[in-house]
Amino acid sequence: MVKAPLNRLRLRRLGVDTQKEYVAYLRVDSHIAMSEGFEALTRIRVHSGNTSIVASLYIVHSNMLKKGELGLSEMAFNALSAKEGGYVTIAHLEPINSLSYVRSKIYGNRVTGKEMKEIITDIVAGNYSNVHMASFITAFGGENMNLDEIISLTRAMIESGSQMKWGKSVVVDKHCIGGLPGNRTTPIIVSIVSSLGLIMPKTSSRAITSPAGTADTMEVMAPVNLSLKKIKAVVDKEGGCVAWGSNARLSPADDILIRIERALDLDSEGQMIASVLSKKKAVGSTHVVIDIPVGDTVKIRSIEAANHLKVLMEKTGNAIGLKIKVVVTDGSQPVGKGIGPSLEAMDILAVLRNEKEAPSDLRSRSLLLAGELLELVGLAESGKGNEMAAKALSSGKAYQKFMAICKMQGGFTEPGFAKYMHDVKADKEGTICAIDNRKLSRVAKLAGAPDHARAGLLFLSPIGRKVNVDDILYTIFTETEGELEYVLEYQKTEKDIITIQ
Amino acid sequence: MVKAPLNRLRLRRLGVDTQKEYVAYLRVDSHIAMSEGFEALTRIRVHSGNTSIVASLYIVHSNMLKKGELGLSEMAFNALSAKEGGYVTIAHLEPINSLSYVRSKIYGNRVTGKEMKEIITDIVAGNYSNVHMASFITAFGGENMNLDEIISLTRAMIESGSQMKWGKSVVVDKHCIGGLPGNRTTPIIVSIVSSLGLIMPKTSSRAITSPAGTADTMEVMAPVNLSLKKIKAVVDKEGGCVAWGSNARLSPADDILIRIERALDLDSEGQMIASVLSKKKAVGSTHVVIDIPVGDTVKIRSIEAANHLKVLMEKTGNAIGLKIKVVVTDGSQPVGKGIGPSLEAMDILAVLRNEKEAPSDLRSRSLLLAGELLELVGLAESGKGNEMAAKALSSGKAYQKFMAICKMQGGFTEPGFAKYMHDVKADKEGTICAIDNRKLSRVAKLAGAPDHARAGLLFLSPIGRKVNVDDILYTIFTETEGELEYVLEYQKTEKDIITIQ
Repeated sequence: MVKAPLNRLRLRRLGVDTQKEYVAYLRVDSHIAMSEGFEALTRIRVHSGNTSIVASLYIVHSNMLKKGELGLSEMAFNALSAKEGGYVTIAHLEPINSLSYVRSKIYGNRVTGKEMKEIITDIVAGNYSNVHMASFITAFGGENMNLDEIISLTRAMIESGSQMKWGKSVVVDKHCIGGLPGNRTTPIIVSIVSSLGLIMPKTSSRAITSPAGTADTMEVMAPVNLSLKKIKAVVDKEGGCVAWGSNARLSPADDILIRIERALDLDSEGQMIASVLSKKKAVGSTHVVIDIPVGDTVKIRSIEAANHLKVLMEKTGNAIGLKIKVVVTDGSQPVGKGIGPSLEAMDILAVLRNEKEAPSDLRSRSLLLAGELLELVGLAESGKGNEMAAKALSSGKAYQKFMAICKMQGGFTEPGFAKYMHDVKADKEGTICAIDNRKLSRVAKLAGAPDHARAGLLFLSPIGRKVNVDDILYTIFTETEGELEYVLEYQKTEKDIITIQ
Repeated sequence: MVKAPLNRLRLRRLGVDTQKEYVAYLRVDSHIAMSEGFEALTRIRVHSGNTSIVASLYIVHSNMLKKGELGLSEMAFNALSAKEGGYVTIAHLEPINSLSYVRSKIYGNRVTGKEMKEIITDIVAGNYSNVHMASFITAFGGENMNLDEIISLTRAMIESGSQMKWGKSVVVDKHCIGGLPGNRTTPIIVSIVSSLGLIMPKTSSRAITSPAGTADTMEVMAPVNLSLKKIKAVVDKEGGCVAWGSNARLSPADDILIRIERALDLDSEGQMIASVLSKKKAVGSTHVVIDIPVGDTVKIRSIEAANHLKVLMEKTGNAIGLKIKVVVTDGSQPVGKGIGPSLEAMDILAVLRNEKEAPSDLRSRSLLLAGELLELVGLAESGKGNEMAAKALSSGKAYQKFMAICKMQGGFTEPGFAKYMHDVKADKEGTICAIDNRKLSRVAKLAGAPDHARAGLLFLSPIGRKVNVDDILYTIFTETEGELEYVLEYQKTEKDIITIQ
């Protein structure tokens, strides 16, 4: 008779979202918890057949689990791809060799490209806990990486996932260094440059802390959850796409690390460069325009900081074979009127359709960046890119291209408004002199964006506008009364969202 | 009618041990999860009446929780001291100011004493998540702290908890920089020096990664879970005690940070110094002997490293008003025969009772360190401490004192052996030439130590011993057959626990 292994447990799906960190739950009175000295926070390996995952262990003292069960958090359960109720075994985790490079870095040593690669491979394999990743991000944070290390990290992140090939010498892309509400130029730029024959396989992110990511906004108008194969098909046909990036496993290390960077509120230059450029390279780009908005309430707050970042980005881009053009823009106030997926989509369509009331700032920013791209690849002469882009837009070619892309992605839908609305009005006469972008974003989020795509706000009070008492500053849209109450309560406590003088 | 706040939830105790990090569980379809944009890993504040705690949030997609419930991990539930089923409210966490000092440190700046104090205060208040603590430990890890910062950290840790006062100009203590199995000199030293009239209020730790901590070993013979008041009473009467430290809230920051340091396997000098010396100062010590065993498989691996540590410890001790004497000792093999709480307790008693077969290495190490303490405080002339200690031991005075201390702590119990035993024998003839202390510790842990106090092993093969085939190298003791099987399986895969040549 073959004895069952002592460490065999029955799998239980707990339905707990613990983000990217896999968590396993084990009862304190399990034989294995006692005999193996497993205690809370121990790192374990969970085996099911030929697959295994690494998880952090929590110890359960209640009947949440039955004896002999191993509970798994949602992503851990999915990663193991085993059946609930099936048998799994667990074991102590073998030592993770690459953690010694992180320790070495803490002691002030440089890491080699090979070592960086090993670290990133372990992170993508799920071998680092959140605590290990926080240590990695800190050790390589601030200004602790030199250019070589930034390049190593960028390369390692590229190699950590899929890489797309287009068989073309010119593939373009753009990126905005975050933080400006409504700055949704991407679908317009993609439409302009692909209508002029360029290849632009654009992958975008969903909102992390903002009321809308480009992927959320695009999704209002067309499906964005495309496989790599589907992206390929759309771009082969239309030259461009606007897809959600995460599904494509392009630079997956970035998706993992960004959560912890956010928890630490630590946004180090070197890591940001690696994050942005690895995604661009992985998608197969050759020429990239980077938009850096500068302002008091966005990520980059001074021209000096923007210029420092520009130089590092250009050098790193050069090392990995990307031609980079950095454009520094105004980041003092929101772009366009809409904040929230559907409301931003309306702005985009207004620009593409050349409507009279289309937001002129969104239009001119899109033309600026599209023009820079056209010049960077040599399609337009220096100084003529903006004009070429404007022509593609005014002629309706860009709009036709956009509709064709939407069709290829799965079909176009016209954006709409949420059910409830409320006008926020000026309480005095004067001139709008400052906007707190962070707080305005928070209003849109409390209103329900991005989960409720039609929620958010329409912003009607740009800096310099003269207002009278009771003029509308912005209009809030929500899908439920509860959310509207919530927003109004928040507004009561925050007086400096929009400053009138 | 007063409306219930939207963020009101019913409290549910989940019985999950997540260590010192408080974790809260909320259903994805709760109104507040949606409207407030709470997502997994968000940090929230949980209010119950006038108390509140900070917790990391996990989002639940299953019926583990009912709608409108907030689940709490075990320590979070205890910290909030609210009733299960009662109402709590939750809110986004206000920004933690001291995290900006950690970020500043990542950028290479020094922190002031005041800033360090604020960081440690937040950590003790539970305001840092594990991820934040990992970042703190990394930023201040390696050699990143200068002497001023080490002193600041030590002071902040002392002030983070209770501090004992004895009204005496001389209060002694000792500490061993970890890692040597069986090195259980503490109860012997306490007995010797307090029998000679010194005050030694010793607080010790339980095992973290080892098969036994001093508190675990002492607990076999007498209760160690003493309140501050009880410690005071024991020491006032007998001059010495051996108590478990954690109950006394002496330097509680250390108890919190040590878990994360262990998870990171990062043992930075500066943090270790602050950890050790803050505990000593908090307990009211004035004179401290530090034992640093040096060996290939213990924490400190070279004389140079030991000396570097010695200098920093002496300078830091000086700054906080502690007289420090560092003694570097041999760390090449276990001390005594027993490994595991009860088996180590037998060694201690054999030495105190002057039994013929008492382990001479444990005896001589205890006398060395006790002698150094006697000289450090000026009770013995230089070079005469060892002799004075030996006299107190041989005369039986130390044993009497030990029994008196046990009585005051709650009563003495004679240690015993676990139920199952198994001899591990030499498979060849030769001389013992090396011991892997880490693997030997692992054998004792797999045997059940320290949770099963009588489990562990008796080590009978010190370096230099000549053995024949089938001579006993060590004897394993376990309380269950399952554990014995477990250990034997481990032994099969590990051939170099004891090397015979």
